[in-house]
Amino acid sequence: MGRNVTRRTVVSVDLGASPPTRRRPDELAAEEPLEIRVRKKPLAVTMRTPGHDIDLAMGFLLSEGVIGKADDVLTAQLCAGTDTPNTYNVVDVVLDPHVPPPVTDPSRNFYTTSSCGVCGKASIDAIRTRSKFEVAGDPLEIPARVLAELPETLRASQRTFDRTGGLHAAGLFTAAGDLLVLREDVGRHNAVDKVLGWALREGRLPLSGHVLMVSGRASFELTQKAWMAGLPLLAAVSAPSTLAVELADEAGMTLIGFLRGQRMNIYAGAQRVTF
Amino acid sequence: MGRNVTRRTVVSVDLGASPPTRRRPDELAAEEPLEIRVRKKPLAVTMRTPGHDIDLAMGFLLSEGVIGKADDVLTAQLCAGTDTPNTYNVVDVVLDPHVPPPVTDPSRNFYTTSSCGVCGKASIDAIRTRSKFEVAGDPLEIPARVLAELPETLRASQRTFDRTGGLHAAGLFTAAGDLLVLREDVGRHNAVDKVLGWALREGRLPLSGHVLMVSGRASFELTQKAWMAGLPLLAAVSAPSTLAVELADEAGMTLIGFLRGQRMNIYAGAQRVTF
Repeated sequence: MGRNVTRRTVVSVDLGASPPTRRRPDELAAEEPLEIRVRKKPLAVTMRTPGHDIDLAMGFLLSEGVIGKADDVLTAQLCAGTDTPNTYNVVDVVLDPHVPPPVTDPSRNFYTTSSCGVCGKASIDAIRTRSKFEVAGDPLEIPARVLAELPETLRASQRTFDRTGGLHAAGLFTAAGDLLVLREDVGRHNAVDKVLGWALREGRLPLSGHVLMVSGRASFELTQKAWMAGLPLLAAVSAPSTLAVELADEAGMTLIGFLRGQRMNIYAGAQRVTF
Repeated sequence: MGRNVTRRTVVSVDLGASPPTRRRPDELAAEEPLEIRVRKKPLAVTMRTPGHDIDLAMGFLLSEGVIGKADDVLTAQLCAGTDTPNTYNVVDVVLDPHVPPPVTDPSRNFYTTSSCGVCGKASIDAIRTRSKFEVAGDPLEIPARVLAELPETLRASQRTFDRTGGLHAAGLFTAAGDLLVLREDVGRHNAVDKVLGWALREGRLPLSGHVLMVSGRASFELTQKAWMAGLPLLAAVSAPSTLAVELADEAGMTLIGFLRGQRMNIYAGAQRVTF
């Protein structure tokens, strides 16, 4: 059993059974904090499911606009920390000297120092990173029947979800519907960062002509991450938010929601879906 | 139509229909940034569904350990910002002078400056706030059949979800299963903060003897928020994470997951559930 699942005894209740309770072992999705350090300085802490931590750090730095290609990172490693036993919850990243260090003043993250505050258009500018990649002109065309098969492919490949029922998934697909990589995490944004970090490490950026599928909803944040990796299409099992649709519109991305069975809704960029 | 829902034309696809596509209006859950200011200084930005923004700010400050009761806040208001038209995306909070201002150095939020980094027990200390309330001795007892009815009550009251299919919900219940307040949001943590802010404003803290039910999974973060409000029981429709269970154990809280129909799993504090 890897570190991404923990076994625990639970009281399982079924009011229709007799007796209604029994103690049984259950498997839980692991959640632990990961600290991402750049140039030995702590940059971020995210609550994540252990595993693919280097990719998570790389994807996070890509999403935040710190790096744009694998060469921007000289080394990235799980470091020891000072705990005994070592919990492997710190990733230390050394950037190429030509890469400007991340903005570590509070304005670019949890905090904002925008003088205007967060209000309408200005707010969206304040909270977002600018993609290095143009996706509006991406010539991707994908048949609706290929899209309709993605959720089943994603679900069938979710090994940890099968055991814990508790994880989000993100999968990177080709336009033919082939799954290139799937990652699971207690946080949707982490699952996406792990996929993007993998693609960056593999030298596959920008991900033009590819499709990102997520198990939950499509938020502003996930849409932004997809754009940062140059993805022309984001598909989600559940609903998008207003801001996700607005960002997809502006980026020229295709955004699909409620992708379930034979049905889906196309919220932006419908020209890429063929019938 | 309130600001929490936006109407938009989508391309609705059904591969089993002829023709397979039609354009129709759809309702989307709104997602906009909210800036929380304390003493005129920006403290946090959260992506939220507009509505109950004052409660969201109050609940956030409670969860972060900044305030513990309604009197700690002199005024909290949606302020104008500098946009035209006003987007009402800034809440300005004035604390009572005796309340220590929030720690605004990066270490308490997105960033950490912990010398040890984030590793094992030290990490959990670093990312968490300390509750003013003791819940381990809370004498709450709740019949399993009452718990079994909560999801249906929550679901039946989710007005925005019914229209958009895109929102998380958090509901505060009495031990008799009566719903006191329900809030919906694109972010689970926001939905919980809105509930806690309501309770704080109503002078109901600590929420001993009460139950918080959430529509999704039970993460470390949500468990911590429940503890900060003095709640002895957190119930979730989906799975808890390992860290959520560990925190519930430590706090002496009851944690229930996979609460669906006649079934549920009790991960911690099973003594409060009666049959």
